[in-house]
Amino acid sequence: MSSAVSPLAPTDVPDMPEIPGVRLATAAAGIRYKGRTDVLLAVLDKGTTVAGVFTRSKCPSAPVEWCRARLGVGSSKGGSGRALVVNSGNANAFTGKSGRQATALTARIAAKALACSGVIGEPLDASKFDGVLGTLAAQAAPADWMSAARAIMTTDTFPKVATVTVRLGKAKVTINGMAKGAGMIAPDMATMLAFVFTDAPISAGALQSLLKSGVEDTFNAVTIDGDTSTSDTLLAFATGAAAKAGAPKISRAGDPRLKAFAKAFRGLLADLAEQVARDGEGARKLVEIVVEGAVSKKSARRIAMSVANSPLVKTAIAGEDANWGRVVMAVGKAGEPADRDRLAISFNGIRVARSGARDPSYDEAEVSAAMKKPKIQIRIALGLGKGRDRVLTCDLTKEYVAINGDYRS
Amino acid sequence: MSSAVSPLAPTDVPDMPEIPGVRLATAAAGIRYKGRTDVLLAVLDKGTTVAGVFTRSKCPSAPVEWCRARLGVGSSKGGSGRALVVNSGNANAFTGKSGRQATALTARIAAKALACSGVIGEPLDASKFDGVLGTLAAQAAPADWMSAARAIMTTDTFPKVATVTVRLGKAKVTINGMAKGAGMIAPDMATMLAFVFTDAPISAGALQSLLKSGVEDTFNAVTIDGDTSTSDTLLAFATGAAAKAGAPKISRAGDPRLKAFAKAFRGLLADLAEQVARDGEGARKLVEIVVEGAVSKKSARRIAMSVANSPLVKTAIAGEDANWGRVVMAVGKAGEPADRDRLAISFNGIRVARSGARDPSYDEAEVSAAMKKPKIQIRIALGLGKGRDRVLTCDLTKEYVAINGDYRS
Repeated sequence: MSSAVSPLAPTDVPDMPEIPGVRLATAAAGIRYKGRTDVLLAVLDKGTTVAGVFTRSKCPSAPVEWCRARLGVGSSKGGSGRALVVNSGNANAFTGKSGRQATALTARIAAKALACSGVIGEPLDASKFDGVLGTLAAQAAPADWMSAARAIMTTDTFPKVATVTVRLGKAKVTINGMAKGAGMIAPDMATMLAFVFTDAPISAGALQSLLKSGVEDTFNAVTIDGDTSTSDTLLAFATGAAAKAGAPKISRAGDPRLKAFAKAFRGLLADLAEQVARDGEGARKLVEIVVEGAVSKKSARRIAMSVANSPLVKTAIAGEDANWGRVVMAVGKAGEPADRDRLAISFNGIRVARSGARDPSYDEAEVSAAMKKPKIQIRIALGLGKGRDRVLTCDLTKEYVAINGDYRS
Repeated sequence: MSSAVSPLAPTDVPDMPEIPGVRLATAAAGIRYKGRTDVLLAVLDKGTTVAGVFTRSKCPSAPVEWCRARLGVGSSKGGSGRALVVNSGNANAFTGKSGRQATALTARIAAKALACSGVIGEPLDASKFDGVLGTLAAQAAPADWMSAARAIMTTDTFPKVATVTVRLGKAKVTINGMAKGAGMIAPDMATMLAFVFTDAPISAGALQSLLKSGVEDTFNAVTIDGDTSTSDTLLAFATGAAAKAGAPKISRAGDPRLKAFAKAFRGLLADLAEQVARDGEGARKLVEIVVEGAVSKKSARRIAMSVANSPLVKTAIAGEDANWGRVVMAVGKAGEPADRDRLAISFNGIRVARSGARDPSYDEAEVSAAMKKPKIQIRIALGLGKGRDRVLTCDLTKEYVAINGDYRS
């Protein structure tokens, strides 16, 4: 955990309400960090449905494999669950057979502590959980979301939470989420863990659909450094407790009664994803890349990602330089249809290039002032079609190199 | 041009022999840099054949478009040429119509200076060439290869030259080359200019074939930051002057008499490409990624490039940490077939991971000592097939960020 909080941390932290059917507890198990909590146990009422999306890494961590298997591979099914165990000290990635054993052991310990079966975990030295989880299960309480968000932090500089309340039928339901970043973030998820909880009564299949469609333009549209972790996990849990308050049971994602919920759910994912970008390692600028006029949305995404992952674009932004030449370079290397002579590029609304050349009308002083802002939007108009997309990233600073290269010295 | 020479600069600089049919001259035209040469003119005897490979950027610079058109688009033809004009102050990239005009004007000025037509250029404020090129044409002399290599430098910290002499039939022929780097280097060429000259009598078509096959495992297997310039250009010129000394005229790349030449040619490209990697912006380590046991060479290349372009791998190497977990991450994100539990990873010959886990036999002190060396080899054995490949890169240091982000402040 870095000592200095990111200058891009949100200034408003929401009050996190309780979610009926969810109880949380944290502990300091000393798995890696000292003097801080590093284990989270979420206890879920019976009947809780679970959905998940995971890293597409070909070398995933043992817990990711375990979760995938529990939820059905390439699942559109989802599953059910009674507990979530997360530790922030050890990803249990590339640990071979012992990693698989540790995951299974954690699941058994948690199941014993809760007198149930069906657990999802992110563990390693599983013996350290023995005792801890039993105590946690006894302590688990509805309210402490901020402590939970803190317990899962690694190089994050601030806890990431979001909440939204929305109508489902005539009942009010709540969605709470928490996430951790902060490096190794790229599409197809990243060293990124995010957990979303709701009391809405939604079937595992419907929840899985919501999650899959929701992740595409939120977490999968965030990149910090183009690196993709072996552990990326986004899980959603629906306890169904709101059924008692009259919320209808939803079994299909396409159910029209789910519309407002689906929108709120996606908004919450977007909020958490933006917080991950705001806490990119060493980040001093939040950068939004908007590509429009591409031949398709897919093409626009690829171009936006090429720009967002370009070290030369990212260092220029760190240097507060509206270096559109590097943006052109990154557009060109994406391999997608683009016509240099139709390109227009704006930084924070100021057009600096158009029709394949510098925009003669732009005011250098105005652009320089705009580049000092903490949020930079790069808008790229290709003039070819109607494809549009947007990704979030951050700048590349010496602090990024220090965080990721100096930890030994 | 940085003041400090890269610690990875070669210690042996070859004596560059003359190439019959090639004369060189340099000048300080003040296009961007002050107090140094920034224009190179190479004058080529009549009958010189030319081959070229260029950036695959969809937004190439005006000179690249001009060269491509001269040599035939997607060419396997090559062409002929009487002069090469290179400036190091302005890439003339993304300059719209005026960029095309500048390129054409440069060509006209050079043609006038040489009383010929058929010129290849990398220009911008073309009027600055007027006068300069006439003087240069008069001064052009066979010997000054180091001055030529210096005149094309931009952020390079040392001039890059290579030479080789080889038999063609019963004659001795020479190949000289020069290159410039140093950032924005990635496959499909980079802000990389390289020029190779020989007196061998080789048809344009055969030269083009040699160049195309030679670039694949040399320049296209080098990456500094994954960014691909809009200006990447590798040109080869064969004056044919060795025909007088008895060298056979070669019209096909498959001609058995060309075998030794082809090998020497590829070796020279490899030498220049390695020098580019050794002068990566801010580089303190030369990094070789060897992937073996992949399902194909193509798959091995993709995995090697994923590792070579991973900011987390590159910062770990800057920090002298044999962080094989990050290597696994980069293998996993490549999207190519890989089995975590079969992976073995070595750093400078010391195996640190095997069978999906830490190698229990490795000696931490030995690895730490090995990581202090200026050249680091990461060997990744996938255990799946016979596909093998190798790429070169460098580490990612704070100096890279400073060079590319601090130039304004």
